[in-house]
Amino acid sequence: MESPAGRTPAPRALPYYVAFSQLLGLTVVAVTGAWLGAYRGGIAWESALQFNVHPLCMIIGLVFLQGDALLVYRVFRNEAKRTTKILHGLLHVLAFVIALVGLVAVFDYHRKKGIADLYSLHSWCGILVFVLFLAQWLVGLGFFLFPGASFSLRSRYRPQHVFFGAAIFLLSVGTALLGLKEALLFQLGTKYSAFESEGILANVLGLLLVAFGAVVLYILTRADWKRPLQAEEQALSMDFKTLTEGDSPSSQ
Amino acid sequence: MESPAGRTPAPRALPYYVAFSQLLGLTVVAVTGAWLGAYRGGIAWESALQFNVHPLCMIIGLVFLQGDALLVYRVFRNEAKRTTKILHGLLHVLAFVIALVGLVAVFDYHRKKGIADLYSLHSWCGILVFVLFLAQWLVGLGFFLFPGASFSLRSRYRPQHVFFGAAIFLLSVGTALLGLKEALLFQLGTKYSAFESEGILANVLGLLLVAFGAVVLYILTRADWKRPLQAEEQALSMDFKTLTEGDSPSSQ
Repeated sequence: MESPAGRTPAPRALPYYVAFSQLLGLTVVAVTGAWLGAYRGGIAWESALQFNVHPLCMIIGLVFLQGDALLVYRVFRNEAKRTTKILHGLLHVLAFVIALVGLVAVFDYHRKKGIADLYSLHSWCGILVFVLFLAQWLVGLGFFLFPGASFSLRSRYRPQHVFFGAAIFLLSVGTALLGLKEALLFQLGTKYSAFESEGILANVLGLLLVAFGAVVLYILTRADWKRPLQAEEQALSMDFKTLTEGDSPSSQ
Repeated sequence: MESPAGRTPAPRALPYYVAFSQLLGLTVVAVTGAWLGAYRGGIAWESALQFNVHPLCMIIGLVFLQGDALLVYRVFRNEAKRTTKILHGLLHVLAFVIALVGLVAVFDYHRKKGIADLYSLHSWCGILVFVLFLAQWLVGLGFFLFPGASFSLRSRYRPQHVFFGAAIFLLSVGTALLGLKEALLFQLGTKYSAFESEGILANVLGLLLVAFGAVVLYILTRADWKRPLQAEEQALSMDFKTLTEGDSPSSQ
């Protein structure tokens, strides 16, 4: 859908979906905190509670903030593209730093307790998320924020960047579910099947994670909710088409 | 992207991606079989091995066949739309029947062993998948296969159907990962952290599942790989646009 130049009104339903996603995301963070507080003794760095830093940081960084970083182009529809890009990049930096604290917490906890690292499917998926996240961020920075890449190169890379961004986010949600399951089975054992309150709360947390992932994906993928081209971007895009395809801009 | 009427060649890279997805999907099924055969005693209905019917059926039905059902519009690009629709619907029926056998197997196994049902996050997600799958199938049948729904109604519902189809498929993959993790932690316990061969194989199976999900999603979401409109569909679409928007077909 081409949009007229200048400010275009946001699609009518979009703000409600964005508000719902934020409500879900904050609920996920709050329920994670409540779970760790009520059933796992809370959070501290210098004790056995150090482990609990891991799930909280991962949920805040790689689920909530990463999800929000993907939504900035839908929310800030009429701001200059460059401003939105910088916000998108910075939210990812913040997400990464918080996730890094969560990563250090679990490795440090394992070292102190003499527990092996990186043997579980959760940990393998988690490392994959970290590697892909970092690679995507660096390649994105190179293509979109530095002025070197041509318009044509950016246009070709953009759909790949969007796909991998969504895929890394979904893999983060899946990895969080695996970690939650692991934490439940290690601690609850057979009590899980007796419908203990911790098990129910954690299952609800799992479904909330699924719902947050689904709503973010829905907002991202709705074709008519994509960010409209601004006047100057549209002009550039048309100039480029004219140069490369020999079209006249008006034939668009 | 509008396509010219008549047979259009498939995008050059698409067949390689489809072949890769099938290779991955078949490998997932084979590795699941190998895991159950080598480490879990194989498969039988009338014994403790009945449980093993569950993972195998779910992987074949809700992962491999469901994934392939989503790809038919990318693979059969020039066949009549109705034929492709029927294949899409039938593949889902086949997937559902196989998954139902897997569902009966685990409930029957639990009943014989006196194990509680539906307490875990895996089971909650699994039931959610079943409910959404069935609802999506019925609504899809009503809108797209029966002649009742108008062209305009179908056009409005189509993007929702595509989104929910992809979301249910991804949730199926996530639920399979949770189930795999559960099976490992129940059986291996502390041996998991000793890098036992079963744990390594199952982790590799988990990564293969993630890869299959990612490749199917990539093929589905690439804008320039979408199925082109056939001549008769395009004519219908233009007539409809003319009627509702007052556009002349040539202004498209």
